[in-house]
Amino acid sequence: MSTRFVYLGPEGTFTEQALRLIPEAADAERVPVRSVPEALDAVRSGEATAAVVPVENSVGGAVAVTLDELAAGSPLVITREVVLPVDFVLGARPGVALAGVRTVAAHPQASAQCRSWLRTALPDAAVTDVLSNSAAAISAADGSFDAAICAPIGAARYGLTVLAEKIADNPDAVTRFLMVTRPAPPPEPTGDDVTSLAVFIAHDRVGALLAVLTEFAVRGVNLTRIESRPTGEQLGVYIFLFDCTGHVAEPRMGEALQGIRRLADRVTFLGSYPRHRFSGGSPVPPPPGQSDADFADAATWLTKIRAGDLS
Amino acid sequence: MSTRFVYLGPEGTFTEQALRLIPEAADAERVPVRSVPEALDAVRSGEATAAVVPVENSVGGAVAVTLDELAAGSPLVITREVVLPVDFVLGARPGVALAGVRTVAAHPQASAQCRSWLRTALPDAAVTDVLSNSAAAISAADGSFDAAICAPIGAARYGLTVLAEKIADNPDAVTRFLMVTRPAPPPEPTGDDVTSLAVFIAHDRVGALLAVLTEFAVRGVNLTRIESRPTGEQLGVYIFLFDCTGHVAEPRMGEALQGIRRLADRVTFLGSYPRHRFSGGSPVPPPPGQSDADFADAATWLTKIRAGDLS
Amino acid sequence: MSTRFVYLGPEGTFTEQALRLIPEAADAERVPVRSVPEALDAVRSGEATAAVVPVENSVGGAVAVTLDELAAGSPLVITREVVLPVDFVLGARPGVALAGVRTVAAHPQASAQCRSWLRTALPDAAVTDVLSNSAAAISAADGSFDAAICAPIGAARYGLTVLAEKIADNPDAVTRFLMVTRPAPPPEPTGDDVTSLAVFIAHDRVGALLAVLTEFAVRGVNLTRIESRPTGEQLGVYIFLFDCTGHVAEPRMGEALQGIRRLADRVTFLGSYPRHRFSGGSPVPPPPGQSDADFADAATWLTKIRAGDLS
Amino acid sequence: MSTRFVYLGPEGTFTEQALRLIPEAADAERVPVRSVPEALDAVRSGEATAAVVPVENSVGGAVAVTLDELAAGSPLVITREVVLPVDFVLGARPGVALAGVRTVAAHPQASAQCRSWLRTALPDAAVTDVLSNSAAAISAADGSFDAAICAPIGAARYGLTVLAEKIADNPDAVTRFLMVTRPAPPPEPTGDDVTSLAVFIAHDRVGALLAVLTEFAVRGVNLTRIESRPTGEQLGVYIFLFDCTGHVAEPRMGEALQGIRRLADRVTFLGSYPRHRFSGGSPVPPPPGQSDADFADAATWLTKIRAGDLS
Repeated sequence: MSTRFVYLGPEGTFTEQALRLIPEAADAERVPVRSVPEALDAVRSGEATAAVVPVENSVGGAVAVTLDELAAGSPLVITREVVLPVDFVLGARPGVALAGVRTVAAHPQASAQCRSWLRTALPDAAVTDVLSNSAAAISAADGSFDAAICAPIGAARYGLTVLAEKIADNPDAVTRFLMVTRPAPPPEPTGDDVTSLAVFIAHDRVGALLAVLTEFAVRGVNLTRIESRPTGEQLGVYIFLFDCTGHVAEPRMGEALQGIRRLADRVTFLGSYPRHRFSGGSPVPPPPGQSDADFADAATWLTKIRAGDLS
Repeated sequence: MSTRFVYLGPEGTFTEQALRLIPEAADAERVPVRSVPEALDAVRSGEATAAVVPVENSVGGAVAVTLDELAAGSPLVITREVVLPVDFVLGARPGVALAGVRTVAAHPQASAQCRSWLRTALPDAAVTDVLSNSAAAISAADGSFDAAICAPIGAARYGLTVLAEKIADNPDAVTRFLMVTRPAPPPEPTGDDVTSLAVFIAHDRVGALLAVLTEFAVRGVNLTRIESRPTGEQLGVYIFLFDCTGHVAEPRMGEALQGIRRLADRVTFLGSYPRHRFSGGSPVPPPPGQSDADFADAATWLTKIRAGDLS
Repeated sequence: MSTRFVYLGPEGTFTEQALRLIPEAADAERVPVRSVPEALDAVRSGEATAAVVPVENSVGGAVAVTLDELAAGSPLVITREVVLPVDFVLGARPGVALAGVRTVAAHPQASAQCRSWLRTALPDAAVTDVLSNSAAAISAADGSFDAAICAPIGAARYGLTVLAEKIADNPDAVTRFLMVTRPAPPPEPTGDDVTSLAVFIAHDRVGALLAVLTEFAVRGVNLTRIESRPTGEQLGVYIFLFDCTGHVAEPRMGEALQGIRRLADRVTFLGSYPRHRFSGGSPVPPPPGQSDADFADAATWLTKIRAGDLS
Repeated sequence: MSTRFVYLGPEGTFTEQALRLIPEAADAERVPVRSVPEALDAVRSGEATAAVVPVENSVGGAVAVTLDELAAGSPLVITREVVLPVDFVLGARPGVALAGVRTVAAHPQASAQCRSWLRTALPDAAVTDVLSNSAAAISAADGSFDAAICAPIGAARYGLTVLAEKIADNPDAVTRFLMVTRPAPPPEPTGDDVTSLAVFIAHDRVGALLAVLTEFAVRGVNLTRIESRPTGEQLGVYIFLFDCTGHVAEPRMGEALQGIRRLADRVTFLGSYPRHRFSGGSPVPPPPGQSDADFADAATWLTKIRAGDLS
């Protein structure tokens, strides 16, 4: 049976662009689906090998549903992340010049992200909302609008000329995507990994959150993201979603996870996977006393004192 | 000059429904705008008295942009929150029966939220994406589609008959809206208030977050929401957004805010305002030793020992 | 070679009384020495098998030297504790009646502890300081004084009649003694043990102490004693002495010790040994999530998620 | 009525030496008493203006009783501390040479502190225990012994020649004394003060101690001493004795004390008084964000945001 990847469609959006950066997907069948829940269900049911969905998406606002579906449904694991710069272009049919653009199609959040550029470069253009970055490209290609704000991949796919690139107001904004599969042993540690967790806390007391963070802190496990989400099931129950620096196979992370398992009402392991790094980046070193060597030294010492060797 | 409220449009959505629950807006001019930034800028510039925007919106995904705009732009304050149940209905022109529905218009996130209901009640209907809950209602009203998933206010406004109500899969889901004004003294404490903050932390160490949470915990200030957001400006700088239980005028909150001011790289006060409560709800009492009486007792004691009175 | 126990002398004091409660010492040679350092050095050099010395002594004030010697010298381990009630008696030669007592010999701290009783029962007696509880008994036996405040064992040994017993002002006061040997595997866990540690912290910041306590707290390890001692070696270096509830062989204590090893400048393991319990006492149960079963469950869960089993 | 200082006698010990360093005592009547409780009771009853007693005494082991009496009895306050180096000398009658010393009188803890020196310089001398450093000096002066280990003040008072000075094994050891009065407003802050507290905690959980330390830590209040003492009254109740850096009149300390007052079962304020500093010493600066300027800035900010000024 062939490998099949599903992704949040339609074709020609940033999610497809992210999918194309994943080597395992190169020779796979690639199927766009209409929603994140649909993508994840296709993996759960075995129809798809893996799904690629946005998780921190300054454009599409898909964060909430992805996190909620991962935390609440039957188990899935994240095996890879892909981070893309938010890299909007203005595309138009060949022959259309920037000066001639009077109408622009854009997803509402795309136009919001390019507000300053639009005000400066196209102060008189009428911007019309469409349903996706891809729909914007299509409607420029078919002549419904003079131009479209879209992803580079969308411009290429629908034969648009790029009139302007990097038009998003915030040059550092990025969108983050996850590759999700059925439960499986995590990929090998690379020395710079992310572990994602959903932790359920029964009362909204700050003390409970402090206790969870302390489990990380005492082992030198760093956090790069935290988000609380109310659960509908029961008032007063919160899910905390954490992205931590490290891998479940490492002692520090193993200890921290065990500690959280003991104290939380419930904890869902969402995966350990390599951190996506831009060229030139380097992992943050652990704080003093929290290196792998420090963990190994402490374990050796414990073995010795348990045996009566205090030398 | 008359009072003007702007809100995230279009008309006929949950945001307008939230606006109609605000007494101060009853006699005001009510103007829908295209985006959250536009709404907030209208307040900043003085064109509008106040804005009503979604902040935790399981439907529209508008959370990120609202928080980012409040945290980063020139100062605004939240003066009220409104919480609505996510209360979708299926609306159709008079005369259309549920059994006859073959085509449904819906915002993609609305159809995602009603997935189970659609699968059961309308397994064969074709669902088409439209740009908003309001656009869905309009397109059912004008005959483009047999029915629409929309807000009750949208069904009413466009003359639709409600074929089914409470069709969202999660009966407890809610959407939260904020009323935002230019800086002003906060409303009087009510005994059950929320204080919102944006805290900037320069390194992504869990220790910095622990320190902030500890400032809350030692004063018995509880949290009901926490979210981290990367800032585009600088890699490694995070904004944490907190909703805390209490009011800036109270000693416990005053002490906590001062503590965070001392330790954080930057902290933005976003407002103290009454918690929206459903009928029957009651505020969570502070932990032992953290009541108003305990604070008053401790202050009296300190005054006495400073004066040499140890009785 | 026979077994030899040394103890802080002279004979006839509470320390000898503690020694007599230790089964291993029943058939051993028992040798009083003049000071705690002398007792410990005799063990270090191999001249003695074990030493019995006071550690929390409301009478003799020997705490500091015992702790300092254990923390700083070449390694020794505590293998047992003995706790005695502070149980002073007034002894006199046969024939002397309480009404006839005009002069009393007492160690200064013994008379301090019996101050109220002396004021009531012997308001006119002259109390003279002597060097030890044992010296007091001897000087009553030889007629230098009418009576002596001493330990029951001292009265018995020197043929004194007990004119009054339980004359200490605080009926709950106790003295605690340690049995110390050369490094050896600790005694088996009993389910109610004490682990003693000396932790060196290079700066006198409260943060460092908080960090050490947190290592205990997150594993549900309780403390029954904490004491800070300046080190003479270097200004600003502190030794913290801890008595913790639990045994080094237990997972919770093992993890806590490793954590402290990683963060402290130096940590000296002083032993795991059965808690001395008075009849009727029972160990405090661990807090929620910190039982042995919770630790075992968390370890099993970690093994499963590392293998990709998320069921 | 004249000013009267009582101090732990006898005359000629380190406590008298400490007393002579206190300017207020220069013209006062100075009365030695037999015990710390007697000294403190003389202040409580009004017989004495102030008492000088040892509190961290590597020689006399008087720590426990001083702390217990201050924590438990009717209120007294510490108004000054004096720290003396442990500065033993070997004194003898004029004409006696070191080489001729065959017998030495010493308090047992004094000889313990000079053990190495005795072993090297007087390997064959017989050391006999006496009741105090002062008694040692007297017995050398009257010819009962060839020499005495004593305080410099004792050698001077009893006409002894100093044969050797600084003979204590640990050159950095110090003894600390407190001047105690009836409750009164504390001395003015000097910028380098100590505040002493006794905190009662009803259960021996490490969590309670962590909570108290956190109150200090979040305000940048440092600790220089911590000690736990069981209370006889009730099993499971502990007193923690703290010496903190700072003064009750300062905002940071005021906040911390109020926080502890709220959470502890009971807290006894024992005084704020200037830290005794050796020449050349300088106070440790507060951690980042905890300076007086930081506290003032945070207070100003709070006043502004409460008034609606977010500039």
